[in-house]
Amino acid sequence: MKIGMLGGGQLARMLALAGIPLGCEFTIFSPDREACAAPLGRSCCYDYSDAEALMDLAASSDVIGFEFENVPVRTLDFLADHLPVRPGPEALRLAQDRVHEKELFTELDIPCAAFFPVDSLEDLHRAAALIGLPAVLKARRQGYDGRGQTLIRQMDEMAPAWQLLGGQPAILESLVDFDREISVIAVRAASGETAFYALSENTHHHGILRLAVSQPHDSMQAQAERYAQRLLDRLDYVGVLALELFQAGDHLLANEYAPRVHNSGHWTIEGAATSQFENHLRAIMGLPLGSTALRGVAATINLIGTVPDMARILGTPNTCLHLYGKACKPGRKLGHVTVCADSMKQLNQILSDLSGLFSSEAVSAVAEAGHYQNQKQGGCA
Amino acid sequence: MKIGMLGGGQLARMLALAGIPLGCEFTIFSPDREACAAPLGRSCCYDYSDAEALMDLAASSDVIGFEFENVPVRTLDFLADHLPVRPGPEALRLAQDRVHEKELFTELDIPCAAFFPVDSLEDLHRAAALIGLPAVLKARRQGYDGRGQTLIRQMDEMAPAWQLLGGQPAILESLVDFDREISVIAVRAASGETAFYALSENTHHHGILRLAVSQPHDSMQAQAERYAQRLLDRLDYVGVLALELFQAGDHLLANEYAPRVHNSGHWTIEGAATSQFENHLRAIMGLPLGSTALRGVAATINLIGTVPDMARILGTPNTCLHLYGKACKPGRKLGHVTVCADSMKQLNQILSDLSGLFSSEAVSAVAEAGHYQNQKQGGCA
Repeated sequence: MKIGMLGGGQLARMLALAGIPLGCEFTIFSPDREACAAPLGRSCCYDYSDAEALMDLAASSDVIGFEFENVPVRTLDFLADHLPVRPGPEALRLAQDRVHEKELFTELDIPCAAFFPVDSLEDLHRAAALIGLPAVLKARRQGYDGRGQTLIRQMDEMAPAWQLLGGQPAILESLVDFDREISVIAVRAASGETAFYALSENTHHHGILRLAVSQPHDSMQAQAERYAQRLLDRLDYVGVLALELFQAGDHLLANEYAPRVHNSGHWTIEGAATSQFENHLRAIMGLPLGSTALRGVAATINLIGTVPDMARILGTPNTCLHLYGKACKPGRKLGHVTVCADSMKQLNQILSDLSGLFSSEAVSAVAEAGHYQNQKQGGCA
Repeated sequence: MKIGMLGGGQLARMLALAGIPLGCEFTIFSPDREACAAPLGRSCCYDYSDAEALMDLAASSDVIGFEFENVPVRTLDFLADHLPVRPGPEALRLAQDRVHEKELFTELDIPCAAFFPVDSLEDLHRAAALIGLPAVLKARRQGYDGRGQTLIRQMDEMAPAWQLLGGQPAILESLVDFDREISVIAVRAASGETAFYALSENTHHHGILRLAVSQPHDSMQAQAERYAQRLLDRLDYVGVLALELFQAGDHLLANEYAPRVHNSGHWTIEGAATSQFENHLRAIMGLPLGSTALRGVAATINLIGTVPDMARILGTPNTCLHLYGKACKPGRKLGHVTVCADSMKQLNQILSDLSGLFSSEAVSAVAEAGHYQNQKQGGCA
């Protein structure tokens, strides 16, 4: 099947690696001349608004997918007039705007932080009075990896925070005092069949995911699946969807959803019977889903900005390396390492052995995760 | 690392899929305009004797590999003057000639069928007198998937068999009355470190592998590893080597070795901690080997000539599909299906459920394998 993929980053690259054995042929459509997925298919380097290039993409594809949240919705709308776009434009439209996203959560009885749209400094004051401080001011659109977010702890931080956003439409969200960050990777087939992976426990630093660890038999699994199921059904969704959640006590609060494969699901390549990438493709191709069962436990460590010595990574038992073929740059996701183990204890031991190879942020993430694990198990950090 | 790969078939394709996440960039050098690995790298479509093209390959590669037994040794010799060729030309030279291969087995005290070189009808008569009938007359060179082989049961079949080979150098091998066919996939790193996968039990029909099943805790594992280890050491080998063996009672007889990744090791993609493809690349790149530990049990069913309905394959639990991107053609390997399970009993059940989807040869192979399993377990077929 011919897949027209909008976006050419590492998610498209890993989708292509999963899809080529299924007989997929990819067209990678991205304005980025250095799109790291481009070598794995036919490369179309055009702007997302180039109607002629999009018509050519439509003519040479059986189905359109996207790997990137900031593809313009009008690009999907344009293509959807000609061939199936999966997931559909509505899922992207709502995800692109934090206010619409939170309104959707509210409509579906999925708990989330108190929020208020902010279009002016006056709005911001009103919002703060309503939901209280501390709170986080976020751009409504175009935010990812923590960009465009400012924590406001007290009144005198409001004006500078608003100034920092440069007057763009925003949202104020009450700061959630959470115990941990988790995500559930869900997938819905064209037939309506759904499947869910075990939760992932995620550690961020400076807004970027550093570590994601699969959680077998997690007590919050059922609750997270219920919320994800509501999103899948409401959006008549086809493909993989990731729902990011905060856990506070026994409650989950939705943070945001991503209408695509997700960084916190990279461990599914080795750690599940079928990876999120293959299941996304099975779904958008109209094929049956594969099993999401865990294979042991697994963790993904993101490689941010630099890549440690390959021989030392691969010389550590139970590790797999995934490089994205991108040039080094501070803050850039260059690859990830997956660690597989038979037990959480073994996993934490390997993570600890590996931590010397990684940047201080990743080490902190590993240490934090170990701390949480120990807390849960009643041990000491 | 830049890998210059001689040959562009499915083995090169699966090597590329395993190597891209390790940061490998491939040049696929093959005279075949439709080489199915070519889209995964820079494609060089030239004859193996094209010195200028080979010089360009050498200049643009860090190491040379090959996926195909019938690459001319002089091509490897030429390249080896300029950069590392792994495994080296000697491993290929000996594997390409059945007489040299059997002489190597004999030198290394690896038991094999009685054999005799045959260059004329007179030689054939002399050989038959020495080793007895039934015996198999095989071309010394260029044979694979059972081509160029004739079974001789009685004296009057000798002249037609010799005629069929067209006078090319041959070998007569006594027919082995074996209980089963197995193979061991071995790998040796540039450092000399070696590792072995669990044995694979293989079923052929018309000379083509139909089914390969991983064998945890097989009683012949240690013996097979000893023989493979001798080959690896003698050849100062770097990369994956497959040794095909016949089991007769408690004895193993070497049939042939392949100086490359092997069809009977395709189940290692899902069924082992590190696939044969990744370990071959780790070896030739000078990196540490990955674990060869089994993940449950797994079987590979080859898709020969036609591809069954994808939705039905993928709708069967625990199956993975690998298509090679080749046009359908009778007798051609178009892909394979891997089945994973927690136990041999579950594996045989899934193989049985799947058998309706495959060609009659594959069904027979599955039935035969089940029969052998049942025999071993003392059950009834």
